[in-house]
Amino acid sequence: MPTILGQNQYGKAENRVVKITRDGATHHIKDLNVSVALSGDMEEVHYSGSNANVLPTDTTKNTVFAFAKEHGIESAEQFGIHLARHFVTSQEPIRRARIRVEEYAWERIEVSGEAEHSFVRKGQETRLTQVTYDGDTWEVVSGLKDLTVLNTTDSEFWGYVKDTYTTLKEAYDRILATSVSARWRFNWTTDEQSMPDWETSYEQVKRHMLQAFAETYSLSLQQTLYQMGARVVEHLGEIDEIRFSLPNSHHFLVDLEPFGLKNDTADGAVYFAADRPYGLIEGTVLRDGCEARIPVDLTNL
Amino acid sequence: MPTILGQNQYGKAENRVVKITRDGATHHIKDLNVSVALSGDMEEVHYSGSNANVLPTDTTKNTVFAFAKEHGIESAEQFGIHLARHFVTSQEPIRRARIRVEEYAWERIEVSGEAEHSFVRKGQETRLTQVTYDGDTWEVVSGLKDLTVLNTTDSEFWGYVKDTYTTLKEAYDRILATSVSARWRFNWTTDEQSMPDWETSYEQVKRHMLQAFAETYSLSLQQTLYQMGARVVEHLGEIDEIRFSLPNSHHFLVDLEPFGLKNDTADGAVYFAADRPYGLIEGTVLRDGCEARIPVDLTNL
Amino acid sequence: MPTILGQNQYGKAENRVVKITRDGATHHIKDLNVSVALSGDMEEVHYSGSNANVLPTDTTKNTVFAFAKEHGIESAEQFGIHLARHFVTSQEPIRRARIRVEEYAWERIEVSGEAEHSFVRKGQETRLTQVTYDGDTWEVVSGLKDLTVLNTTDSEFWGYVKDTYTTLKEAYDRILATSVSARWRFNWTTDEQSMPDWETSYEQVKRHMLQAFAETYSLSLQQTLYQMGARVVEHLGEIDEIRFSLPNSHHFLVDLEPFGLKNDTADGAVYFAADRPYGLIEGTVLRDGCEARIPVDLTNL
Amino acid sequence: MPTILGQNQYGKAENRVVKITRDGATHHIKDLNVSVALSGDMEEVHYSGSNANVLPTDTTKNTVFAFAKEHGIESAEQFGIHLARHFVTSQEPIRRARIRVEEYAWERIEVSGEAEHSFVRKGQETRLTQVTYDGDTWEVVSGLKDLTVLNTTDSEFWGYVKDTYTTLKEAYDRILATSVSARWRFNWTTDEQSMPDWETSYEQVKRHMLQAFAETYSLSLQQTLYQMGARVVEHLGEIDEIRFSLPNSHHFLVDLEPFGLKNDTADGAVYFAADRPYGLIEGTVLRDGCEARIPVDLTNL
Repeated sequence: MPTILGQNQYGKAENRVVKITRDGATHHIKDLNVSVALSGDMEEVHYSGSNANVLPTDTTKNTVFAFAKEHGIESAEQFGIHLARHFVTSQEPIRRARIRVEEYAWERIEVSGEAEHSFVRKGQETRLTQVTYDGDTWEVVSGLKDLTVLNTTDSEFWGYVKDTYTTLKEAYDRILATSVSARWRFNWTTDEQSMPDWETSYEQVKRHMLQAFAETYSLSLQQTLYQMGARVVEHLGEIDEIRFSLPNSHHFLVDLEPFGLKNDTADGAVYFAADRPYGLIEGTVLRDGCEARIPVDLTNL
Repeated sequence: MPTILGQNQYGKAENRVVKITRDGATHHIKDLNVSVALSGDMEEVHYSGSNANVLPTDTTKNTVFAFAKEHGIESAEQFGIHLARHFVTSQEPIRRARIRVEEYAWERIEVSGEAEHSFVRKGQETRLTQVTYDGDTWEVVSGLKDLTVLNTTDSEFWGYVKDTYTTLKEAYDRILATSVSARWRFNWTTDEQSMPDWETSYEQVKRHMLQAFAETYSLSLQQTLYQMGARVVEHLGEIDEIRFSLPNSHHFLVDLEPFGLKNDTADGAVYFAADRPYGLIEGTVLRDGCEARIPVDLTNL
Repeated sequence: MPTILGQNQYGKAENRVVKITRDGATHHIKDLNVSVALSGDMEEVHYSGSNANVLPTDTTKNTVFAFAKEHGIESAEQFGIHLARHFVTSQEPIRRARIRVEEYAWERIEVSGEAEHSFVRKGQETRLTQVTYDGDTWEVVSGLKDLTVLNTTDSEFWGYVKDTYTTLKEAYDRILATSVSARWRFNWTTDEQSMPDWETSYEQVKRHMLQAFAETYSLSLQQTLYQMGARVVEHLGEIDEIRFSLPNSHHFLVDLEPFGLKNDTADGAVYFAADRPYGLIEGTVLRDGCEARIPVDLTNL
Repeated sequence: MPTILGQNQYGKAENRVVKITRDGATHHIKDLNVSVALSGDMEEVHYSGSNANVLPTDTTKNTVFAFAKEHGIESAEQFGIHLARHFVTSQEPIRRARIRVEEYAWERIEVSGEAEHSFVRKGQETRLTQVTYDGDTWEVVSGLKDLTVLNTTDSEFWGYVKDTYTTLKEAYDRILATSVSARWRFNWTTDEQSMPDWETSYEQVKRHMLQAFAETYSLSLQQTLYQMGARVVEHLGEIDEIRFSLPNSHHFLVDLEPFGLKNDTADGAVYFAADRPYGLIEGTVLRDGCEARIPVDLTNL
């Protein structure tokens, strides 16, 4: 046979599961998008179409919903751990399970005080996690996407390489804006008695990231990226690695001189927020001595 | 000539203008997406291609950016008023200008206290306004879209018509969720000395809408829609009409009986959040005696 | 009561119905997205939540799928007519039904000849129709969206108004590109024995539109718009009115002089395809003597 | 220092470059979206903000447009090769360049014959390529996305594992539909005199893929995936590896029994095309003896 099967995985993607728990009149909401990917002894289904080793993707969907009832959703990470363990341990041909979760945050509507069972979607970043289990070792990579931030000042860009194709003017006071996409890897891998507190950890990562963005006087977006990552790794002992994909969302100072206007900061400066193209700055920050395991590309080809 | 020209309009759409004003070290941000549509004596450009009456769309773009500097952006509505007045009064062939604005909200990053010049995009609803001027009368319609809300209880649906094609079971305790799209029309039309306070008005509309959603014990989404609209019109004298387009974002209780699980509210109920199809409930609430002028369709064919 | 109910409508939106008919080994596919909007005596459900006059949106969904079986899908328009008639005539409180349909085209995969039951989605424009019925008169408006076209030459733009904010340079040979969104209204309103041939009509509209775009030497996009509309109305007696929403998808000649390159047409010219802002040209072409009934806005606020 | 920098890359993403070449009155169009990612000695910019080794992303954008003029766009792959070679060889600190390209296809509008300079966007799949160069070896991975295909029959699914959570019924005649996302790796790595014919290769890959989809009597989507991949690798000697990400776009036969209708293939069967969740089948097909190098995930976390 001139061709052979390489890596493969399958499962049901984007199961939109919502769980409402009631604590008396006070209700709580967990709103997830859960994707299952299983791999193992799957040669036959590819070569001959025999499904003898195939747990249907429909079954993986049912499992997600049933587990939300049976085990609850303490956190996206914990829910992923329950699911991954189940798939790997319950079906012999399945050797590895990877659970991805997107989580959408809600806040209580203000009535007189906070409403007990009425919510408005927060709408800011989407929280992410990916739990992988091979029957032996866990890998938990969490993250977020679409957290859009902007500094109106304290950003410069100069002293760069100039070649034949360089026309950019140096900037000494520019807007720095980006939409943060980040993934961070936990060093927890085996001991189920000593997991991180996933909810607290997430809030702290987000806070450190935002503060580092705000507090870094930036000479390049790369510098800001590194500061954001270093702050997270330094403060959170459970995280060994963090990777960012940061578009440089250009805000160009508009040339108003043709209209006799000086577009300076007196009376406010006016910018054009551009769509494409955009700079794209990607990089990993590692705890010294640790290995990088998050893939280079958070975005598609 | 067997064909003639009907209504027409043109201009530059989606000008992404950002203005940063500095109040000492404290900076403020206005982040808009502005679209211009002009109409008037435009037969010739359609019939023969003569541009003698055509102000280029590029010029309308330049005007948006220049006006952001010259007049500032006090509010989306006020900015639209400046622009519309300019186009109608400065060029004879232009008889009517319509300015549409989307506004994106930002909040300050928490550092130790609120950051002075670092922001994170709020990410909740998008604020909208449309200002139309014909040289004589103003029409201001404001609105919002993508404000996603959810009640975990206090929603029923029963007692409806049952025909040959009806299979739906009656519901006595269901999730009610929607993504609010609304437009409201101000009764201000002429006197530039007595405009509403646009910023305050917007905050109040949003607050009343959210509170009415939270406080209405709902027997149908139509009832909730009416309560939301009535609350706005009753509390805000400057608004005569409000129209909603409310998708009924179905959350179906998952049937877990095949797995021996009772999916009731004890230990929390599990729902499947569906995408399509969805109910779509649309309606207008009017101040008694006032005319409806907002178009029926907030969404496209 | 200080507020009253204005226009309202409701139904199930975006029912994704696919019908496969078999003609021996040769199969045919119809792939639609059908939205139902009903209106009538619906005051009570808004005022008190009584659903006594409300046919559930779930029932309207069931009806769409059942009718695809019972009546087939001869064309999007004919299918909409079956549905609208049913809703208005079968339920007394329903006085008006509006059915919107999106249709996605498929073509047969080439094997040795055309495959009998294997298809690839064509992926070009989306076909649209909207059928409205009040028990008495029909209104059929059909259309298309996302038909992206481009002329590499035979387009100029000069001789326009120049004001304080004008910086645009005149162009004597530019790219003209747009993504056509169009809606056209049929003059058929009552006689069910003499309907247009909906399928043939659609193909002809599309062909005339494309040819008019290709054959018009354009001095402005407005002129091209009018030619496209006039060609359709002149050739197709069943259509009285057509409205376009045409973004001017700017392709800017890149300034390569800083790199010692002349960006002329010798060896090919290089353009930057811009996203936002874009010109937006909208207009209606009418058969002389006919009334305009298609709404001004094909796009949302 | 407790943290260190890991893999990083930067550049200008999504440069929308269009080139029109004229062959007398007959014009040709190349429509690309080009993203540049450079890596090398970039520690300092991350640690201290020194840009001494940083070629600005703006310069990489200029280079894309200038090279479209200077070198032309023979194919997406060849254009990527020109760019990657330039960045790696012209700037010492740059050790590796990765160029990604999306290409949009256009076809000529039919007038009387094919128009010479009027085009309509084909709208089917998007063509992709990624060229990576480290100064020594080339890696070219090409691909496509959004090629939506559907078989109306010749698809079964049965004989699968059944566990506690399995409710799916076996299917002996179902619709099989997917939106193909694929990436294939060329074995060309060094000799610039003996490159594949990139344009011909792409057309052949697409043709073999479509034909394998149409001709495979499918017992599972995994089997179809393998057939599609094997056909490509077997017929095209220049390709050693191909990876697919295939959503199983479920078309569920609608239960019409409550309405007294039998939804069988007589008179046509009616399906509901579902959005989410969907099965997701991913896998690699390798030429025997070759190494897998395409990343496992074509989609994001």
